[in-house]
Amino acid sequence: MRRILIDTDPAYTVNIGVGLIERLGSSIQELEKQPESVMIVTDSTVGPLYAKQVQDALSHYHTIVHTFPAGEAHKTPETLLGILRAMAQHELTRSDLVLALGGGVVGDMAGFAAAVFQRGMRFIQCPTTWLSAVDASVGGKTAVDLPEGKNMIGAFHQPAMVVCDVETFKTLPELRFADGAAEMIKHGVIASPELFARMKDLTWRLDPETTVAMNVEIKRSFVLGDVHDQADRQMLNFGHTIGHAIEAWSDFKLSHGQAVAIGMVMETRAARKLGLSDLDESELIAVLNKNGLPTETEASSEEILEFALHDKKRRCSGVTVVIPERIGRARLQTLDMETFKRYIEAGRS
Amino acid sequence: MRRILIDTDPAYTVNIGVGLIERLGSSIQELEKQPESVMIVTDSTVGPLYAKQVQDALSHYHTIVHTFPAGEAHKTPETLLGILRAMAQHELTRSDLVLALGGGVVGDMAGFAAAVFQRGMRFIQCPTTWLSAVDASVGGKTAVDLPEGKNMIGAFHQPAMVVCDVETFKTLPELRFADGAAEMIKHGVIASPELFARMKDLTWRLDPETTVAMNVEIKRSFVLGDVHDQADRQMLNFGHTIGHAIEAWSDFKLSHGQAVAIGMVMETRAARKLGLSDLDESELIAVLNKNGLPTETEASSEEILEFALHDKKRRCSGVTVVIPERIGRARLQTLDMETFKRYIEAGRS
Repeated sequence: MRRILIDTDPAYTVNIGVGLIERLGSSIQELEKQPESVMIVTDSTVGPLYAKQVQDALSHYHTIVHTFPAGEAHKTPETLLGILRAMAQHELTRSDLVLALGGGVVGDMAGFAAAVFQRGMRFIQCPTTWLSAVDASVGGKTAVDLPEGKNMIGAFHQPAMVVCDVETFKTLPELRFADGAAEMIKHGVIASPELFARMKDLTWRLDPETTVAMNVEIKRSFVLGDVHDQADRQMLNFGHTIGHAIEAWSDFKLSHGQAVAIGMVMETRAARKLGLSDLDESELIAVLNKNGLPTETEASSEEILEFALHDKKRRCSGVTVVIPERIGRARLQTLDMETFKRYIEAGRS
Repeated sequence: MRRILIDTDPAYTVNIGVGLIERLGSSIQELEKQPESVMIVTDSTVGPLYAKQVQDALSHYHTIVHTFPAGEAHKTPETLLGILRAMAQHELTRSDLVLALGGGVVGDMAGFAAAVFQRGMRFIQCPTTWLSAVDASVGGKTAVDLPEGKNMIGAFHQPAMVVCDVETFKTLPELRFADGAAEMIKHGVIASPELFARMKDLTWRLDPETTVAMNVEIKRSFVLGDVHDQADRQMLNFGHTIGHAIEAWSDFKLSHGQAVAIGMVMETRAARKLGLSDLDESELIAVLNKNGLPTETEASSEEILEFALHDKKRRCSGVTVVIPERIGRARLQTLDMETFKRYIEAGRS
């Protein structure tokens, strides 16, 4: 088992290993203040696979399982309200614990519910997908969609602990592997030639414990000391400025990982064509394709621009983009509107 | 105009005076970062009286007015969602501003919406009732009710500024004066003989600017350095342990102020009868009656106990109560369950 200390306030550990669900009881015993009740929040995909196992591991506590329908379409205020009302009906207090068992949607929803129930209670993340393990374990971002847009409401709320049992990845369908791969390739491009090499030769799948730990360390290095979305943390947006736009353009038929994959290729090409970087996108395309990810879109540059400017990260004074300089290194650059338009066009062609 | 600095992180000022709504534009210009849009959130009672005036004062900004039906019954997740969706539809960003124009319900709802919209944006409180001016200006507590209970969800979110135009109090019905009086009398009992005297001879109404300032200073002294509901801040719960129970028992037919008034009398009597304090409740009863507040209830001690133990502030190891030692001074004491039962019985008789 790997333990990575995330030195936020409050600090917490990310535990990564095999068979950790069975040992959840002793993990929770490490918490400074013991809960009476633990509400396990999960979805209709993950719940039937692991909820019973989690309950068995937590037999020393009073446990409640709350299951909601799986899928991004259910990341809604209605689902959130269902979780919150269940918490109230079971008379949870601020001393109790929420355990998020599932992928990104479960983590976002359960984390947000924990952030606002009685103005804040503790929660534990148990990510069961590659994507949530490498992306949601660090940063403290929780969110819910509105009909008007994704992640429109949310809170910064650090988990009390992250327990990542890599055995749960075995039950993932192939597309969910690819979604995780997109974020990990992103981490490789902006921070680690070593990780990029693992993604290239597919060895990342063979030793999930090490792979997740590498990614968590990278994300931690960008996020720490900066929990409110400025400066260095923006480096993690590589592929996302265009990726988010393409995801929205596709009406979310493309997964987040697929959209980010296309976004990374376009952002790399755009930077090269505008003379902002020497990095050629061909190696990136090869790695993405090898991991089952798309690298092209039918969206026109006009369409991408329109969606990109609707993104909440737009600034009237300009748009900050991530320029990959070489594999393992990137920088931020703010483009004025005129340059940003040329950037989008250059990325598309 | 009085300006009181509330030294939280971030710090903000509470401005109290006459005609401050007309000068809201220059108040907002003092903010470090200027918003483009200001969404005025108000209710169907206050909106028709002051929303236009606020918009006129903010003619340099793009303003939107969002009005929801007045009353505690509308402090719901549905109303919250309406505010959040309006914010999204008007494409507010984290750089924009929410202005809460109204009493406690408006402040709680608009503040919570600001806390979670895009994971947090700034808001300004414009309290238009005595109660919200003296109670909600300090503390950063925002909340929404669930069908399962009051204030079940919420966030700690400090306003960017509080602008209290005491002229708005003139349009308040008499019961709303009494509601404010209950909290101010509470402040007098726990911290200020001078304020208690003002409440006794009714001079508090003659100089609202000074009265509000005295109360804000008192609340600030208890809350500061302790924004998460521990220790000293618990002193502000005087009258609330029993008051909340009576409020719930009455199915909220009693207003919060009325319930707290009865609660203060019972808690003072209980402390005296259990030999925890020498303070007699007769002077308190006289002040409360003079301000149009009730001091007795038909709820039995069994009923009060039942509701008190359902309150979220209960602790299995005991219940912390506020013991008034003399007018202007109180202390905290934790009672075991058996003693707490006797305390409730002693308060009732």
